[in-house]
Amino acid sequence: MEQLYNSTIAAISTAMSNSGIGIVRMSGPEAFQIADRVYKGKKEKKLCEQQSHTIHYGYMVDGDQVIDEVLVMLMRGPHSYTGEDTVEINCHGGVYVVKRILELLIKNGARPAEPGEYTKRAFLNGRLDLSQAEAVGDLIASQNEYALQSSVSQLKGNIKDKIGEMREKILYHTAFIETALDDPEHISVDGYGETLKKVVDEIIEAMKRLLDSCDDGRIIKEGVRTVILGKPNAGKSSLLNVLLGEDRAIVTDIAGTTRDVLEEHLNLKGISLNIMDTAGIRDTEDVVEKIGVDRAKEYADKADLILYVIDASRPLDENDAEILHLIKGKRAIILLNKSDLDMQVKKDQEELPEEFPVIEISAKNVEGIGELEDTLKEMFFQGELTFNDEIYITNVRQKTALQDAYAALERVNDSIAADMPEDFYSIDLMDAYEALGNITGETIGEDLVNEIFSKFCMGK
Amino acid sequence: MEQLYNSTIAAISTAMSNSGIGIVRMSGPEAFQIADRVYKGKKEKKLCEQQSHTIHYGYMVDGDQVIDEVLVMLMRGPHSYTGEDTVEINCHGGVYVVKRILELLIKNGARPAEPGEYTKRAFLNGRLDLSQAEAVGDLIASQNEYALQSSVSQLKGNIKDKIGEMREKILYHTAFIETALDDPEHISVDGYGETLKKVVDEIIEAMKRLLDSCDDGRIIKEGVRTVILGKPNAGKSSLLNVLLGEDRAIVTDIAGTTRDVLEEHLNLKGISLNIMDTAGIRDTEDVVEKIGVDRAKEYADKADLILYVIDASRPLDENDAEILHLIKGKRAIILLNKSDLDMQVKKDQEELPEEFPVIEISAKNVEGIGELEDTLKEMFFQGELTFNDEIYITNVRQKTALQDAYAALERVNDSIAADMPEDFYSIDLMDAYEALGNITGETIGEDLVNEIFSKFCMGK
Repeated sequence: MEQLYNSTIAAISTAMSNSGIGIVRMSGPEAFQIADRVYKGKKEKKLCEQQSHTIHYGYMVDGDQVIDEVLVMLMRGPHSYTGEDTVEINCHGGVYVVKRILELLIKNGARPAEPGEYTKRAFLNGRLDLSQAEAVGDLIASQNEYALQSSVSQLKGNIKDKIGEMREKILYHTAFIETALDDPEHISVDGYGETLKKVVDEIIEAMKRLLDSCDDGRIIKEGVRTVILGKPNAGKSSLLNVLLGEDRAIVTDIAGTTRDVLEEHLNLKGISLNIMDTAGIRDTEDVVEKIGVDRAKEYADKADLILYVIDASRPLDENDAEILHLIKGKRAIILLNKSDLDMQVKKDQEELPEEFPVIEISAKNVEGIGELEDTLKEMFFQGELTFNDEIYITNVRQKTALQDAYAALERVNDSIAADMPEDFYSIDLMDAYEALGNITGETIGEDLVNEIFSKFCMGK
Repeated sequence: MEQLYNSTIAAISTAMSNSGIGIVRMSGPEAFQIADRVYKGKKEKKLCEQQSHTIHYGYMVDGDQVIDEVLVMLMRGPHSYTGEDTVEINCHGGVYVVKRILELLIKNGARPAEPGEYTKRAFLNGRLDLSQAEAVGDLIASQNEYALQSSVSQLKGNIKDKIGEMREKILYHTAFIETALDDPEHISVDGYGETLKKVVDEIIEAMKRLLDSCDDGRIIKEGVRTVILGKPNAGKSSLLNVLLGEDRAIVTDIAGTTRDVLEEHLNLKGISLNIMDTAGIRDTEDVVEKIGVDRAKEYADKADLILYVIDASRPLDENDAEILHLIKGKRAIILLNKSDLDMQVKKDQEELPEEFPVIEISAKNVEGIGELEDTLKEMFFQGELTFNDEIYITNVRQKTALQDAYAALERVNDSIAADMPEDFYSIDLMDAYEALGNITGETIGEDLVNEIFSKFCMGK
């Protein structure tokens, strides 16, 4: 990857739509020289000669032609995002003008950056480990407070530190075994299995906690897959509309109005819900509606959470029985809708299983929605999430590597139990060490690095 | 407008879509103090105590909670865009995170900025005159090189200076007249009409040049309204597709394929064309097609330019005769299409009026398009546009004010010609002075100022 360090890259780092300010960023050994070729400040000021972390007012010029009035930000390596000399040009945020400035830099010696190349350089220059680099992408994509907090915590190096600790322990014991095997006369490994087992168990325990957090991590990052279920005309679409605060789904008195699954995204008290409104569950002869009902069942099967809407103004029937069967063993909240009418179904109705919270609501009058929100939050997060202590793995790649490391350590324990020779231990220990290294990027191949960063947005 | 200066405003200055970097900008007397409440750098660094035009790495914090890793840019008034103390927070460019930071600033004492309020403050603080402020909006909206150059020239103050010169002359002579009238014993205005006429004529001449530029100005800014005209099957839609480089319009062998007017925007050698493909002109019984033909004629009437496409493989007919009648006295280019076939219509065909350039093209084989582009450019801009010398008025508001000033000066000339008393001169001179002041904003009311800036984008 040597050539990386020799080239100076440039890209537009702000979104490509007209706005107040746009930023064109340059990074690399020639960033200051290239900037000097296109910058004209007051007096004959040379950017090369200016101090790091200073701001300079002036014009971008293409020969005699003034392109824009700008502020130029200078950051000298290693004290920059990439670790290299970096120049950020803050210009007017018109799409044409930012493109024009990018072209100007390229004409004067920069090359267009690939997506994520700034962060990749930060990684290759050792400014960030891979888990931190991935946190940058997650931070930009965060859509709620928990996702933001989780990525900020990861960006600050919490995962890096935790994984680093584990790797250090593993390396220490591998080294001990290797040394002992090389020098059996002076170092004894008698009874070492027991010592090692204690360490491995400890690490396995920590890994288990991290792996258990993955599901929460996914929910934090991607949102809770929530399916609204109920028989026709129970008020499912009305509930969706109330939660969204807009008329998204068509609501009529006609049973079977909703057929397609409608998917929407919303934030409730910092939790993201990907909420799906489905066809009412009933036996039906209508072909399109029947497909809708089958789909509703499929979605229910894969849901993180089911909001089961009951029309409480009518007695429970065989369709409700079917739904109660569907949601058995899942996370669900039962909503007794139409609390504004005479309630035929009560909170303590014997047919309703005790495992689910039951809430009375009126989608029509927007009542009971606050209680639903509170219940949701309690259900997914016991108390306040504190990201200062907890670490959440939200990344599938990191989860897979963690699972590999976990499996390798289990093999170590198996070998100890079977009283295998010590070199068996060290092979699996090294596997675990390498798998953990994939998370932080220390043992990762160039191809994978390229793949990871290619998913970043342009200019980051 | 006193309260303006007492409040500190905050807004997101980058576009609201995920990107590498986002900027939240604060301006006002408390900008530094508010920033200090939410910034945590290395050591106990206070932003208040830092020098202007410096960059500081750190975190945005909401109490104990870290919101993002940021770079903070400090610019002390009067050396900032608004002329006030300004803090720009460069954060990760996620929509959620930039909103979160804006909320944080507001929670800590800033108030949300109105659209264009930064530029409005720059104007009220005397950093920009109104023509420069309007140039900021135009610069962001520019879609081609000429529009960019024109707005940069305006931003640099070329219009301001030109108008300033005119106003100065007018003021000088008004003052002379007033003084003379106050002190007739010592200052004589005998024969002064003649002197004044010379000055007024000079200014009128300069105004005329500026007013003449308005049409070019509109074209630079908004693009050339270009209508493709021709009889059915001449290849109008093929030409549109070739110019756009994509299959925009449906092309078939069936005469009358295009009915709706298709409008597209394209850049040719730096000129923006708003190009409209129309129904082929012919007598037709088809109701929809007939409406299309009528519309084509309407559009042709309002066009800046007509591209008249002739099917040169067939002799001219009565439909062509009608089109030639339509384009009489307009700016048009005649395109002999299907140059790949046997040409029945020649460049020197007697029916083709000499006033229009004639170009042979083949939309099918993409031939002759370069010549068309060159002709277009020559037609609209004599030679290269040099924005260093030329000033273009591209703004309707400015044009109207200029027309008012022009009319007032003509009244002065009329008064001189009619040998009216001198105080008549000075009334009209002052009218011209005020009208010109509207362009630079010196004599403009608060309501109009508010209206102008309300059209700006948020965060500018």
